[in-house]
Amino acid sequence: MEFAEYFPVWDKLTPAQQQALAENAMLRTVPKGTVVHNGSADCIGFLLMHTGQLRVYILSDEGREVTLYRLFPRDFCLLSASCILRGLQYDVTIEAEKDTQFWQIPAQRYKQLMEESAPVANYTNEVMAARFSDVMWLIEQILWKSLDKRLAGFLVEESALENGTLLKITHETIGRHLGSPREVVTRMLRYFQDEGLVKLSRGSVELLDVDRLRAVAEG
Amino acid sequence: MEFAEYFPVWDKLTPAQQQALAENAMLRTVPKGTVVHNGSADCIGFLLMHTGQLRVYILSDEGREVTLYRLFPRDFCLLSASCILRGLQYDVTIEAEKDTQFWQIPAQRYKQLMEESAPVANYTNEVMAARFSDVMWLIEQILWKSLDKRLAGFLVEESALENGTLLKITHETIGRHLGSPREVVTRMLRYFQDEGLVKLSRGSVELLDVDRLRAVAEG
Repeated sequence: MEFAEYFPVWDKLTPAQQQALAENAMLRTVPKGTVVHNGSADCIGFLLMHTGQLRVYILSDEGREVTLYRLFPRDFCLLSASCILRGLQYDVTIEAEKDTQFWQIPAQRYKQLMEESAPVANYTNEVMAARFSDVMWLIEQILWKSLDKRLAGFLVEESALENGTLLKITHETIGRHLGSPREVVTRMLRYFQDEGLVKLSRGSVELLDVDRLRAVAEG
Repeated sequence: MEFAEYFPVWDKLTPAQQQALAENAMLRTVPKGTVVHNGSADCIGFLLMHTGQLRVYILSDEGREVTLYRLFPRDFCLLSASCILRGLQYDVTIEAEKDTQFWQIPAQRYKQLMEESAPVANYTNEVMAARFSDVMWLIEQILWKSLDKRLAGFLVEESALENGTLLKITHETIGRHLGSPREVVTRMLRYFQDEGLVKLSRGSVELLDVDRLRAVAEG
């Protein structure tokens, strides 16, 4: 069965647990643009990605969006089941960026499994720690240090100076201009790439959407 | 043994696990002002609070501090062992606000226990979910919506209008002025109270430190 291949700690479950999980995981297909989850009150359960792409984002009062992360095949989504993780109450929106298929696992069923199975609990822990870390990093860099604005502004200026959208520049050099470590610049450039703003190659940054970069810079 | 009373899922451990844990948990005493942990590279292990108070905060490039949360007796600290939670790499500082005693549990020992014991893994999960949620809320409200600035500004203005530091005003009313739900205002007021800025009583808010409130408002 395909689900078994996608569920990360399947081999560490007992046959009874495997059966209960398989019987409860429902494969859903949603077209591009579907809002799969909206706000903390909405508890659709845990999602295990099969195909396609989901975007998880938060929305400010003024309607500004910040993408927290994307979910690709084999990724596991906890925030869609925030109701079940005591304390995890957070308003995110999850939207399909492509036609997408995922398994939806009812929150209560998964929680029961976590309580029985240390491997499942530890796997869930790891996913949560990784998301926690990503989200903290992003929010800190974007909302506190405005690195997204500063980086976008820098790229737009360089492009005007160079009279072109293909910039031959290293992340190291960008970092020196912005006063940020290279690793931080690389991570934010990858975030821009995921957002469709730039394309990264060795030793160069190509601006794909100067208008949107300008909009980011002007925040 | 006292540790057994403080460790939340002690009764769900096997005698061998209890023994291994007790042998490895080291009671440490630190005076007020001690920096217990600093940055993600520093992996002192998991902390279980016995007495006193620790403050967990992040620091911006310009040296601005945001308190993420405080740890009181019986609280459990994960971020001090971020090295062990794969993916959880986050630069926080942990400082003793009072003379403090805590048990320090080596990261590897605890991780092994999590892998063996579903109750320990699930407990750790719950703590992480609660912190994740707190931190997201706070960062969103403070760094994105500037609720701290707006609330502090409102309180300082009201105090000038009323000619006194004891404001007879409900959280509901403050919320209407700031365009935020009552629950959000209450939570931020409690945060201010923990920071020593105000004292809350039924139907009133007393300003304890107008100068610091003004500094927050001017951010």
